[in-house]
Amino acid sequence: MKNRLNGDIAEINAALEKYMSHGENPQKKIYEAMEYSLFAGGKRLRPVLMLETAKMAGGETETVMPFACAMEMIHTYSLIHDDLPAMDNDDLRRGMPTSHKKFGEAMAILAGDALLNKAFEIVSSVETAEPARTLRAVSMLAASSGTEGMIGGQVVDMESEGREIELPELEYLHLLKTGAIIRSSCTIGVLLAGGTEQEVTAADEFAKNLGVAFQIRDDILDCTGAEEELGKPIGSDKTSGKSTYVSMLGLERSEDLVKEYSEKAAAALGIFGERAEFLKWLTGYLVNRRS
Amino acid sequence: MKNRLNGDIAEINAALEKYMSHGENPQKKIYEAMEYSLFAGGKRLRPVLMLETAKMAGGETETVMPFACAMEMIHTYSLIHDDLPAMDNDDLRRGMPTSHKKFGEAMAILAGDALLNKAFEIVSSVETAEPARTLRAVSMLAASSGTEGMIGGQVVDMESEGREIELPELEYLHLLKTGAIIRSSCTIGVLLAGGTEQEVTAADEFAKNLGVAFQIRDDILDCTGAEEELGKPIGSDKTSGKSTYVSMLGLERSEDLVKEYSEKAAAALGIFGERAEFLKWLTGYLVNRRS
Repeated sequence: MKNRLNGDIAEINAALEKYMSHGENPQKKIYEAMEYSLFAGGKRLRPVLMLETAKMAGGETETVMPFACAMEMIHTYSLIHDDLPAMDNDDLRRGMPTSHKKFGEAMAILAGDALLNKAFEIVSSVETAEPARTLRAVSMLAASSGTEGMIGGQVVDMESEGREIELPELEYLHLLKTGAIIRSSCTIGVLLAGGTEQEVTAADEFAKNLGVAFQIRDDILDCTGAEEELGKPIGSDKTSGKSTYVSMLGLERSEDLVKEYSEKAAAALGIFGERAEFLKWLTGYLVNRRS
Repeated sequence: MKNRLNGDIAEINAALEKYMSHGENPQKKIYEAMEYSLFAGGKRLRPVLMLETAKMAGGETETVMPFACAMEMIHTYSLIHDDLPAMDNDDLRRGMPTSHKKFGEAMAILAGDALLNKAFEIVSSVETAEPARTLRAVSMLAASSGTEGMIGGQVVDMESEGREIELPELEYLHLLKTGAIIRSSCTIGVLLAGGTEQEVTAADEFAKNLGVAFQIRDDILDCTGAEEELGKPIGSDKTSGKSTYVSMLGLERSEDLVKEYSEKAAAALGIFGERAEFLKWLTGYLVNRRS
């Protein structure tokens, strides 16, 4: 299973490199900044989920790869902009200087813009699938990363800083900020594979629960994990006064919730039968991770 | 003619307002920032060009309106990010506080991101045209606003600051930074109207020359125009040490070039015969403007 995961990641990295190739033009420097963040050691969670949900629904890797790469670019742009001094003001990510520390703020803003834009360049140039289906997938991608999705979650997150929030607000925030593109990664995967509407819905239910379990594990690790394993200072959420699942519910209840949500995620894959084996393994791997 | 232009602008504003409608959700505040910049008195040059090139090629307004609005959103996001302290650090635009002055830097970054994203949400949801054609138009839009288009131009612009540049570099910079989306506004208009490839090429040639004439007029106005008419300090390019057509070629030669390029623009519309009448008038109106 771990080999299959690593194989997926290798394929994704190769495709991302292909999409980053560019001419010897005067603006080539922006690619350096885009590549720096894109190849900074991300887990490739979203593209892996897209490839694997597609395979589970009987699809081919090459059909979904453009969308999988676009998703990783959108995730990466959001991290670059999130790290900016005006936002979270983070100097390090995964143990490396953040984009604005390395290239300056102006270039970091543009590199983020460029990655978001490149994502749509890639998916709108897809010629392997039926145009109507491709267009629907582009629309799902855009909706999940916008004001009713990830960006909306960032706004709520920003507005919640420095004040106590309640559990429903925390849940809403994560449902949008991290949940929206995890869900669209899975639904787009099934859609492009030609899955039924029922299969798309099942993938959405899987991803929704996986996203929550993943986020709670993140909060737990931030509270307990080893600094060198995480690549960021332990307890950074706590010191910045951010509300987390752990600060609201405590460690024990948070651990229980990880288990509950991951079981719900696995159960949602029932209609795929044995073909869901890998994603069930991946769920356990992700929610029980130590870094 | 002026009435027709104002009619187009009114239609575009109504459509933009429709696209800005949103639910009473916790992230609704981002819409306030998006709307603030979107309705800050822009000339609607790009969407007007798209509507009118489409009409010239026999198309309907409603078919191109989603793309016209998306184009204005992309233009607006680029202005918001360009004004940021890390970029041009402008406090005023069209006589009003810039986005980060009004809403803070974090919200300005997100509002820009959100407008770029919203543009792609809108165009990927178009159901009135044939999906293959819509997808090609999305692809043209994305290419013109990305690293090989507008963002690329911003990078070159940024890298040229504080040093002397030569005319070819200035031309390249504007060809990308302002030219790319002016061109795609016109080519997408003709494409969506069902124009021939020859007509798309003619519209591109028109827009390319119009874009240069428009930019040179901008440089001239920056040097000579009245501050209150422009809504920004006169000579701001000069004081910031930016290279412009005027600083390189002088006022007289710049005026000649405006005339040359606008004549080339008008000539490119020859194949459209009388249907090009309005766009020829608009060209004169834009390049001879006093603010």
